[in-house]
Amino acid sequence: MAPAPRGLFVTLEGIDGSGKSTQARRLAAALEAEGRAVTLTREPGGAPGAEEIRRLLVTGAPGRWSAETEILLFTAARRDHLERRLAPALAAGHIVICDRYVDSTRAYQGGDPARRALVDALHREAIGLDPDLTLLCDIAPEAAAARAAARAEGAGEDRFERKGLALQRALRARFLAMAEAEPARFRVVDAAAPEETVARRLRDALAPALDAAAPLR
Amino acid sequence: MAPAPRGLFVTLEGIDGSGKSTQARRLAAALEAEGRAVTLTREPGGAPGAEEIRRLLVTGAPGRWSAETEILLFTAARRDHLERRLAPALAAGHIVICDRYVDSTRAYQGGDPARRALVDALHREAIGLDPDLTLLCDIAPEAAAARAAARAEGAGEDRFERKGLALQRALRARFLAMAEAEPARFRVVDAAAPEETVARRLRDALAPALDAAAPLR
Repeated sequence: MAPAPRGLFVTLEGIDGSGKSTQARRLAAALEAEGRAVTLTREPGGAPGAEEIRRLLVTGAPGRWSAETEILLFTAARRDHLERRLAPALAAGHIVICDRYVDSTRAYQGGDPARRALVDALHREAIGLDPDLTLLCDIAPEAAAARAAARAEGAGEDRFERKGLALQRALRARFLAMAEAEPARFRVVDAAAPEETVARRLRDALAPALDAAAPLR
Repeated sequence: MAPAPRGLFVTLEGIDGSGKSTQARRLAAALEAEGRAVTLTREPGGAPGAEEIRRLLVTGAPGRWSAETEILLFTAARRDHLERRLAPALAAGHIVICDRYVDSTRAYQGGDPARRALVDALHREAIGLDPDLTLLCDIAPEAAAARAAARAEGAGEDRFERKGLALQRALRARFLAMAEAEPARFRVVDAAAPEETVARRLRDALAPALDAAAPLR
């Protein structure tokens, strides 16, 4: 393919209840209000086929799939999303804001070294697209659980209790380790701050990349 | 895991209409009649989760998935099948007769070098189990089409016409090239012969491996 105009690929990551989905929507809206072309999307899903694979992943009994089969299904959904949504939007020069991407697969399914190696190998072989910038919404699991409980009248708290604070702590540590390993790609933002403050900090974290890659049109 | 009793993993491959599904059933029945423990299965599918992935693959519009996404979905279904069905059956000492396996993904989705490399990489990273023996039911596409038409009152012929004889010829050539590249694993059987004759030849092709690996109990 000929070199195309290239947008900016931004992912938001974080544990359950970190507020990243809310912040992804706010960030997309703020950039659109500035007159920029934005694609807001999410994983798993983000394209019709990928959403069907998502349904296989999120419905049914726990333990329905092994971690390895989940990694393959997430990568299949990611490949479909990449072809049908991410690559066309980036080729059109859009700023793509994606709620979760491969780092979530690394954190949730790649908890032991062999599975992490499988996630990385499949990403290399079948995906090959890394974010330009990853915004990590970092928050203590206890604070995320309290916030989710307040917001959803207990539903969020139930979800936390089901998955367990110990797992959320492990997930947070894995995300922070990834940020430390790739400081050029990651920006860690304190997501325990008020929503407005977090939104401003995320927008500020994007400024250098936006100035370089996606001038106002 | 401790070393387990090890059965024999036999796959049947071939183009559409080669008669391999019929022959897989006959072979399994013949081995059972000899008093052997047999598991008859198929791909894609062969386990409940894998069958759900199969439904994603075989329903919907043509072009719904790219070849690369198909390769990932086939590998996900294969991983589930491996964990839930193939590995337990082999550990229990069964002769596993599997109608299609990774060589079908190589033939159908791996037609160009980059895709073939993706099939091979995913197989190495996520599956890692090769058949002990692969029985290739080899037949000219014209003969397979005529036989399918006679059997299914035209339905088979329609399927052939839809996929096209040129594609079936390319598939046959890919299967034969695989057999030539791995002569220790493959046995090529002339599937244009009468059904009884093919059944006897397939059973005979298994004899050395059975004598070595899975004595009568």
